[in-house]
Amino acid sequence: MTNIAVAQSGGPTCAINASLVGVFREALKVSEIDAVFGSINGIEGIIDNHLVDIKTIITSNEDMELLRQTPSTVLGSCRYKLPDWNDQPEIYEKIANTLKQRNIGAFFYIGGNDSMDTVNKLSEYFAEIGLDVKVIGIPKTIDNDLCITDHTPGFGSAAKYVATTMHEITRDSIVYSIPSVTVVEIMGRHAGWLTASSAVLHAMGETAPHLIYVPEVSFSLEGFLTDVRQQMSKHKAVIVAVSEGIEVPDGVQSGEVDNFGHKYLSGIGKYLEDVIRKEIGCKVRSIELNVMQRCSSHLASKTDIDEAEAIGAAGVRCALSGKTGKVMVFRRVEDVPYTVVIDSANASQIANNEKFLPKKFINSSGNNIRDFALDYFLPLIQGDINLITEKGIPKHFAIHESVLK
Amino acid sequence: MTNIAVAQSGGPTCAINASLVGVFREALKVSEIDAVFGSINGIEGIIDNHLVDIKTIITSNEDMELLRQTPSTVLGSCRYKLPDWNDQPEIYEKIANTLKQRNIGAFFYIGGNDSMDTVNKLSEYFAEIGLDVKVIGIPKTIDNDLCITDHTPGFGSAAKYVATTMHEITRDSIVYSIPSVTVVEIMGRHAGWLTASSAVLHAMGETAPHLIYVPEVSFSLEGFLTDVRQQMSKHKAVIVAVSEGIEVPDGVQSGEVDNFGHKYLSGIGKYLEDVIRKEIGCKVRSIELNVMQRCSSHLASKTDIDEAEAIGAAGVRCALSGKTGKVMVFRRVEDVPYTVVIDSANASQIANNEKFLPKKFINSSGNNIRDFALDYFLPLIQGDINLITEKGIPKHFAIHESVLK
Repeated sequence: MTNIAVAQSGGPTCAINASLVGVFREALKVSEIDAVFGSINGIEGIIDNHLVDIKTIITSNEDMELLRQTPSTVLGSCRYKLPDWNDQPEIYEKIANTLKQRNIGAFFYIGGNDSMDTVNKLSEYFAEIGLDVKVIGIPKTIDNDLCITDHTPGFGSAAKYVATTMHEITRDSIVYSIPSVTVVEIMGRHAGWLTASSAVLHAMGETAPHLIYVPEVSFSLEGFLTDVRQQMSKHKAVIVAVSEGIEVPDGVQSGEVDNFGHKYLSGIGKYLEDVIRKEIGCKVRSIELNVMQRCSSHLASKTDIDEAEAIGAAGVRCALSGKTGKVMVFRRVEDVPYTVVIDSANASQIANNEKFLPKKFINSSGNNIRDFALDYFLPLIQGDINLITEKGIPKHFAIHESVLK
Repeated sequence: MTNIAVAQSGGPTCAINASLVGVFREALKVSEIDAVFGSINGIEGIIDNHLVDIKTIITSNEDMELLRQTPSTVLGSCRYKLPDWNDQPEIYEKIANTLKQRNIGAFFYIGGNDSMDTVNKLSEYFAEIGLDVKVIGIPKTIDNDLCITDHTPGFGSAAKYVATTMHEITRDSIVYSIPSVTVVEIMGRHAGWLTASSAVLHAMGETAPHLIYVPEVSFSLEGFLTDVRQQMSKHKAVIVAVSEGIEVPDGVQSGEVDNFGHKYLSGIGKYLEDVIRKEIGCKVRSIELNVMQRCSSHLASKTDIDEAEAIGAAGVRCALSGKTGKVMVFRRVEDVPYTVVIDSANASQIANNEKFLPKKFINSSGNNIRDFALDYFLPLIQGDINLITEKGIPKHFAIHESVLK
C-alpha cells in the first residue's frame, strides 16, 4: 500500500469531518501510507478523478481541531447510488483507473446505507478483477438506522441538539396562562431513533415530551387527538415530538410538492398543527428542527465526535490488517460505565438494510418511550467539545468553494 | 419602601430571567427592601393578586446561576395591554389594592413596548391618586426595536443564535455539486435588526448571507428573483436571510390562516422557497428559525446575560433614588473597546414607539448590510456563559407548573 483515498457521502452530520480527521491522523502515523487523497463529492470524485491531496488542505493540528467542530462534509457529498457492475461496467472501470493511476491501495467511504452498498459492490468488483484495493466503510448518519453497529457517528450530536432544543422549547411554551400544544417535527423517514431520543428529557425530571410518535408505530389521527386531549387535561403546555416519517393521510409529506399554492407544502408538523387547530381549537404551534438537527456542531456531543474520529482511525488499521469489504461498527459492552469497542462487519450485512427502534423501547400506547431505553440514549450525548471561536461564533474549517467544483 | 414586586411580560428571550436575577440580587443587598414578590403572568398577577414570594422559590446562589441560563420567563408572561384608566378604572383599582395590601413600594416590569406603556400608565395613575409606588421598566426584546436604548437585553443572545446557526446552515448547504438556494426566515415583523445581525458572518470572511431582506426596505418579488439569479452566478450555494415581516403579495404571512388546506399556511420563507422553485427551478430549501432564535439559551451571549442582570439591578437603584415612570436604557459610549453605561429615560418616550434599522446600515441595493454596521452588532454577541449541565443537557430553573396557574 502506498496511497489511500477517502470520501464523504450522504446527508450532513456533525461527525463526518471528525471521521475524516480520524482517517487522516491515523494515516500520518503509519509509514506504509504516503499520500491521503480526498475525493470531492463522494464516490463521484473517484469516478471523475477529482481528488485533492489532503496534506495540502489540512496543514496543521489546528486545522484538524477546527474540522472536528465543523459540521457537514468538507469534501462535499453526493447522493449517488453506484449501479450494478453488469449494468454500467464503464463506471467501475473509471473507478479502477483512478485508483490505479493514483496508486491507491485503500479507499475509505464515510457514509450511510447507500455508501455501504458502494463499499460492498466495489470490494466484490476489485476481488473479481484482482485489484488489490481495500474498501472500508465508516458509518455515519443522524438516523442511527444502520444494522449491526450499536449506533452511528453523528447520531449522538443530533440527539444532543434535539434534547437541548426540546428542553428550551418546553420553557418557551409554558409562559402564557392559556393551554397550548407544541408539535416538534424531527428527522427520520423510516426509523424513529432521533425522535425517540428526545425522551432523555424525562431523565432530567421533565414531563415533556408528553407524546412521542415514531414511524415504527402505525399512526391514527383519531388516536392522536385523543392522546393530545388527554395530555391537555394534565398539562397546560403539551409538547409533542413527531418523526417526519409517520404515515398520515393524503400524501402529506415534507417539502417538495410542485402543485403551487393549492396543496399542503409543509411537513407533518404543520399538518398536525392545523389538525389540532381545527379539531381542538387551542393555541398550537409547530416547529420543524430542519437541518439544524444535523448541522448544529456547536452542540456536538464530545462522545460522538471522539468516537467518530476513533472509528475513522480504526478503519485505517482494519485496511492495513488486510481486510476489505468491511464496515467499522461499535459494539456496546456496557451502558454504565459506558463502554464500546470498535469492530468490523461485512458490508453486505449492512448495505441496504435498516435498523428500526426496538419495539420494547416504545410504551404500550405507542405514544412515548419507556424509561429503561434512556440507558441506551444517554451515554451518546455526553460531553461538550471545547469550541474554538472567532468574533463570538464557533469557527469552521472550509476549503474554497471553487475546489468543490 | 418595604416590599417590591417584579413581573415579566411579552415574548420569551434568553435574558428575561437574568434581569429578574438582577432585580432580586440587588434587592437582597438593600436594607430598605424586605420581600420581593414575583407577579405571575406579568401584570395579570398584580391585577389578580397572584404573587409569589421570590425568596421561597429562588433559595440559593445556584438557583440564580441556573436562572441566568434558563430561557423564557420563569414567572410566566402575558400579552395583556393595560386599558386606559378612563375606560376601565376598576383594573387600576385592583392593581392599587394589591400593591397596598402587599405593602409594595416599587414595581419592576421586564418587557417590551407594551410593557413600557404599562409602566407609563401606572406611574401616571399612581401620581394621580397619590400612591407612592415607583414604577420602573426593564427592557427586553429580541426585536431590538425599543427607542432611546442602544439595544435591548435578549437581542444579543438571539443574534448569536442566528449567526451561529446561519454559519452551520452555510456549511450544510454547500455539500452537493448542484446549485442551491437556502432561504432562512428570521423573526422581526416591523424591524429588521435580528435579520440584519446575520451579517456578522461577513466579519468571519464568509460570503453568506449573500442576500438580506428587512422590513425597512420595500420588497419586490421581481427584484428578489433578479438578486437570487445574480448571486447564483457567483456562488454554488446561495444563502438568503429574510425577516418574517417583509411585505409580500396575497397576504402571505406566518401561521394562523384558518382556511384549512387550500391556502399557504406557512410563512414568508416557505413562500419564497416556492417562488424560487417555480421561477428558477433549482434545488431550494426554506428554514424557519422559529422559537429557537428566542429561547436557545445554550448559545446565550455572556455580554447579553451580564447586561440583562446589570440593567435589572440598576432598575432597583433607580427606584430607590426616588424616580418613577422610567425605563432603564443602555447608552453606548464606544464600539471598541465596547463600553456602555446604564441610564434611565421617560417611559412615555419609549412606550408604543418602534426603533427601526438605520437606513445607513443597509446597502444601496437594499439587499444586504454594510460592513461598518458590524461594529454595532459584534460586541453584543461576545462571550459564552459557563453552562451548568445535567445528563449532558443544559439545566434549567423552573417553578412547578401548578404555580403558574
